Amino acid sequence: MAGSEFQLIQSYFSDPEQVERSDLILGIGDDCAIVSPKEQTHLAFSIDTLNSGVHFPHNTSAQAIAYKALAANLSDLAAMGAEPAWFTLSLTLPGDDKWDDEFREQWLKQFSQSLFSLAGEHNIQLIGGDTTRGSLSVTIQVCGYLEQGKSLKRSGAQVDDIIAVTGELGAASVGLDIVLGKKSAQYKSLSDDAKQQAVHALNYPQARIKEGLYLKEVAHSALDLSDGLLSDLGHILKASDVGAELQLEQLPLASALSCLDKQQAWEKAMTGGDDYELCFTLSEKAWLKTKQQFPHFVAIGKITAEKDLRLLEADGQEYKINAKGYDHFG
Amino acid sequence: MAGSEFQLIQSYFSDPEQVERSDLILGIGDDCAIVSPKEQTHLAFSIDTLNSGVHFPHNTSAQAIAYKALAANLSDLAAMGAEPAWFTLSLTLPGDDKWDDEFREQWLKQFSQSLFSLAGEHNIQLIGGDTTRGSLSVTIQVCGYLEQGKSLKRSGAQVDDIIAVTGELGAASVGLDIVLGKKSAQYKSLSDDAKQQAVHALNYPQARIKEGLYLKEVAHSALDLSDGLLSDLGHILKASDVGAELQLEQLPLASALSCLDKQQAWEKAMTGGDDYELCFTLSEKAWLKTKQQFPHFVAIGKITAEKDLRLLEADGQEYKINAKGYDHFG
Repeated sequence: MAGSEFQLIQSYFSDPEQVERSDLILGIGDDCAIVSPKEQTHLAFSIDTLNSGVHFPHNTSAQAIAYKALAANLSDLAAMGAEPAWFTLSLTLPGDDKWDDEFREQWLKQFSQSLFSLAGEHNIQLIGGDTTRGSLSVTIQVCGYLEQGKSLKRSGAQVDDIIAVTGELGAASVGLDIVLGKKSAQYKSLSDDAKQQAVHALNYPQARIKEGLYLKEVAHSALDLSDGLLSDLGHILKASDVGAELQLEQLPLASALSCLDKQQAWEKAMTGGDDYELCFTLSEKAWLKTKQQFPHFVAIGKITAEKDLRLLEADGQEYKINAKGYDHFG
Repeated sequence: MAGSEFQLIQSYFSDPEQVERSDLILGIGDDCAIVSPKEQTHLAFSIDTLNSGVHFPHNTSAQAIAYKALAANLSDLAAMGAEPAWFTLSLTLPGDDKWDDEFREQWLKQFSQSLFSLAGEHNIQLIGGDTTRGSLSVTIQVCGYLEQGKSLKRSGAQVDDIIAVTGELGAASVGLDIVLGKKSAQYKSLSDDAKQQAVHALNYPQARIKEGLYLKEVAHSALDLSDGLLSDLGHILKASDVGAELQLEQLPLASALSCLDKQQAWEKAMTGGDDYELCFTLSEKAWLKTKQQFPHFVAIGKITAEKDLRLLEADGQEYKINAKGYDHFG
């Protein structure tokens, strides 16, 4: 940890009200943090960086940046069926005129409050960090507990598995269009409330931790949807050496897509990024049980032995997609 | 892990020749990496970010950037007495004209070779990562094993402890001046070899892992010298609620300081950053034993009950320093 920024870390990231885990031995303030992992468990690690102007528009609020950076990482833990434990934060802040002492202080206050609020919800504790000068960027690494031998990998999908998702698709992608002022003609009929909801979905994604902990008992494979359903499902198919059929009429379309025609809505739901729902596969029997527990989960297709990904309309016709995969907005 | 950069990670960071640890369950390529920690141990975590133009000059080679980013993190493990185990990497690469496909490929090849070479020396394995577009920046988080109850904290220094360091001070700071073309009149009498050695000390710091593993048995406190002796020793004094006396004539001055007058050399050795030697405190008895094991370690002073930091010349006169603490070169 760089000593020169010690005070910055001390004042904003040593929140006395944050989670205090009993498996933490030494927190922020030394060369390393020390934890005492529970015996007989595995640990899951994930690291993600969000850069201003690439992963979020430059005018995004400090609250939203903090929330999204942690939520995106928590979502990776959820996708493995892991229980959140600790995280580290590396924060790079600009040194230009806009970022004077007052602005920086205000920004850090909003950022840290939002971060600790979400961390508290998931009982995950900030144990260390680094703050540097440069282009605005947030890197978070999370670590969580996994039951030995019970993890949700991408590679376990089996032929005839049901493919399902934990919630609606496409809202965040509409939110991004709205924030960037793109395709405004398309969204003219959306109410202001609906627009706000879409922007909220973009900035405050929900990490499906509880769902992942349940799914690790029953699902064969899973991942979280960050780059768009088609692109992400492709990883499961490749890792599992299988194919899939998706039933387009079954896609759970976010209400923000109601202003689009059917085909536009399908494409948005399949290629829009930042949904952070889980996509998983499991046996039909396990699916029926799961659907009772989580009625809002939606089956959208089946794993096939044939190794391509086919998109089917209600009449069984194959649908050819126009949109390209999502590759950040920059 | 962002899916869109999957291929980049696959091709450069899945080196089949890298370390293969038996405590790794699942490496790069899923939402999280999974490890199975040894029982009855603690884990130490540290995260550090190096930004181009702040922590290293823009013209630094890919090899040096990779080496230094990992070494600086390993040094934090060394400073706790930890044994390296796994690390994650978040790499942000520019998208401007200079960084065309050919340049990027060459850069990544050099970066990854240097990274894996150092990782191999310390038996630490890359288990996950993220690659994004933006200003050149490298964030590494390391994780290592600690014997339960045996860690080298900053807070354990005791009155009458010997203060010692694991090696010479000041070379990296001279190297930085040379790279930046600063104070060239001062360094005119240095041979080209000596200049190259100083630049090498800046770019390829040595993490004192072996030394830290030994010191955790005998030292009361320790940290690694990244910001400069005075600034870093200050953290030990503050955390331990003690003071110190340093004997300036005992400072182990790097040979690159030979071109400076005595006072300039002292100040460089005390305020120059990037040494990455360990500074530690221990009883006189433990020191005598330690010095037999590591004859090149050097005692430089004593911990005092009086809470200030006094710099003493050979005749016992107090020396007043001119230079300010190190706060990166940017």
